[in-house]
Amino acid sequence: MAFQIHILGYNSALPTVNSHPTAQLINVNERLILIDCGEGTQVQLRKIKAKFSKINHVFISHLHGDHIFGLIGFISSLMLLGKTTPMHIFGPLGIKDFIENQLKHTQSHCNFDLIFYEMDFFDSRLIFEDKKVEVYNLPLDHRIYCNGFLIKEKPKLKNLKIQEVLKFPEIETCDYLNLKLGKDFKLSSGQIIPNELLTYPQEKPLSYAFCSDTRYRRELVDLIQNVDLMYHEATFGSELEEMAKKTGHSTARQAALIAREANAGQLILGHFSNRYREFNQLLNEAKEVFPNSILPKTLQEFTLERV
Amino acid sequence: MAFQIHILGYNSALPTVNSHPTAQLINVNERLILIDCGEGTQVQLRKIKAKFSKINHVFISHLHGDHIFGLIGFISSLMLLGKTTPMHIFGPLGIKDFIENQLKHTQSHCNFDLIFYEMDFFDSRLIFEDKKVEVYNLPLDHRIYCNGFLIKEKPKLKNLKIQEVLKFPEIETCDYLNLKLGKDFKLSSGQIIPNELLTYPQEKPLSYAFCSDTRYRRELVDLIQNVDLMYHEATFGSELEEMAKKTGHSTARQAALIAREANAGQLILGHFSNRYREFNQLLNEAKEVFPNSILPKTLQEFTLERV
Repeated sequence: MAFQIHILGYNSALPTVNSHPTAQLINVNERLILIDCGEGTQVQLRKIKAKFSKINHVFISHLHGDHIFGLIGFISSLMLLGKTTPMHIFGPLGIKDFIENQLKHTQSHCNFDLIFYEMDFFDSRLIFEDKKVEVYNLPLDHRIYCNGFLIKEKPKLKNLKIQEVLKFPEIETCDYLNLKLGKDFKLSSGQIIPNELLTYPQEKPLSYAFCSDTRYRRELVDLIQNVDLMYHEATFGSELEEMAKKTGHSTARQAALIAREANAGQLILGHFSNRYREFNQLLNEAKEVFPNSILPKTLQEFTLERV
Repeated sequence: MAFQIHILGYNSALPTVNSHPTAQLINVNERLILIDCGEGTQVQLRKIKAKFSKINHVFISHLHGDHIFGLIGFISSLMLLGKTTPMHIFGPLGIKDFIENQLKHTQSHCNFDLIFYEMDFFDSRLIFEDKKVEVYNLPLDHRIYCNGFLIKEKPKLKNLKIQEVLKFPEIETCDYLNLKLGKDFKLSSGQIIPNELLTYPQEKPLSYAFCSDTRYRRELVDLIQNVDLMYHEATFGSELEEMAKKTGHSTARQAALIAREANAGQLILGHFSNRYREFNQLLNEAKEVFPNSILPKTLQEFTLERV
């Protein structure tokens, strides 16, 4: 079991020598998911020795350059590397034309399928699931259509209390799956054996919320309740709360308010305005509201574990 | 007087941690010209502390990703930095739509003029000139429409041999410009005073040729005759000459043949295939034909000087 978040870049707007625009690589039980892809992301992926060929799912929060300009280069490199499996790209309406127009002009011919899932809705939906993972979009409030993403482990089957199960000869092997799925068992006498008697409590699926560029948005709280780890943009300090509102961003304090109300395990801040030379002011402001706030480092890896 | 070439990147195809796709910054008497703009070029420009605001002319050889994917990010950063002067972009037909479609989807509004000069011709023309510099396109032979560029100092006015000039009272100050432009002087007697008597020989304008992705193309030789410095792609070694031809590239030996026939001052090789771990094989192959061949280093600067 692995649930890791690799911070490839967490800066806003201008890429510089030591700061990289937004991109994160998520590993959920060996399912690799790339979230956002600012310019230079493919080089950041190389630095952490990520296996390009295993990244088949990309989620783009919004079509601002610092979140998207690296995607065409990443796709082009995958072509050169001989990728054959499909690449699934989730993003705002327009992302298909954005990428395909570049492929057209560069006369690039994908030898793998590029499958786009364009979003233009304003509610939270299950936008992707497979055996390992579920991804929900989180509607945000930015200057341009924007989503965050909630990534959850797929709930696992419950484990049987086999000694208890064996006490009931009527329960056959073919009934085990239903028990693991949480169903009660009905004896031929009509007596109900509650599921909790026959199984151990289900492990809570681990979850991570990526909250990209957004104004303070209280509605997030319900969507990410009890999330184990969350990233939330914190472009400004509270002294620039008006500026944050105007430009579609949050303050560090506002990010922390969301984390506190959502009962999050930990909060990673990011997307700091270039006006800040160092970010302790932003960190301290967040910690006053939500003590388990942290500043990321570029290429830092976070591992989610059950407590 | 300055004529400098800064190698921002010289690798082909896949950007990696230590190799950067093609981009060069040319400084001709403080006129800054960017040639090609692979992903990450803006960060390379920051490393050499280039003044972004002084770059108003960009020349793109062709619309393959390793020569163009950094341009949209560079333009976006110029917007954020508050650029107001026009940006002139020269490139293949299609470059305007390539960039403007990205600006549309990212909802970016340029506060400076973005002026495109789209090329679709197959002869060499003077495509740009101002008081300091002339730029000619060099038609190349790649898989996709592609040009190199010849950058020349504007010829300077000749210097007067003032002692000689003063021997002719008929020559007035208002005649000096014509003399500096190289014209002879006609006395009222009808006698012609040849210009060479009145002026020093003109300094040869310095020149630099950028020969991007191309098959061996003998026609280049006449277009860049006596160039002081040239860059020529050398994607492969001679053992892969067939591959070079097939993929629209040159071998190091072919690059050197062009340099020798053109009587170039020096040849910089580049755009090496990722299959080469080190490039001495390619360098030696070129040197056999043209001894003054060199391998560039990333961020290396070359200065042209009159001998």
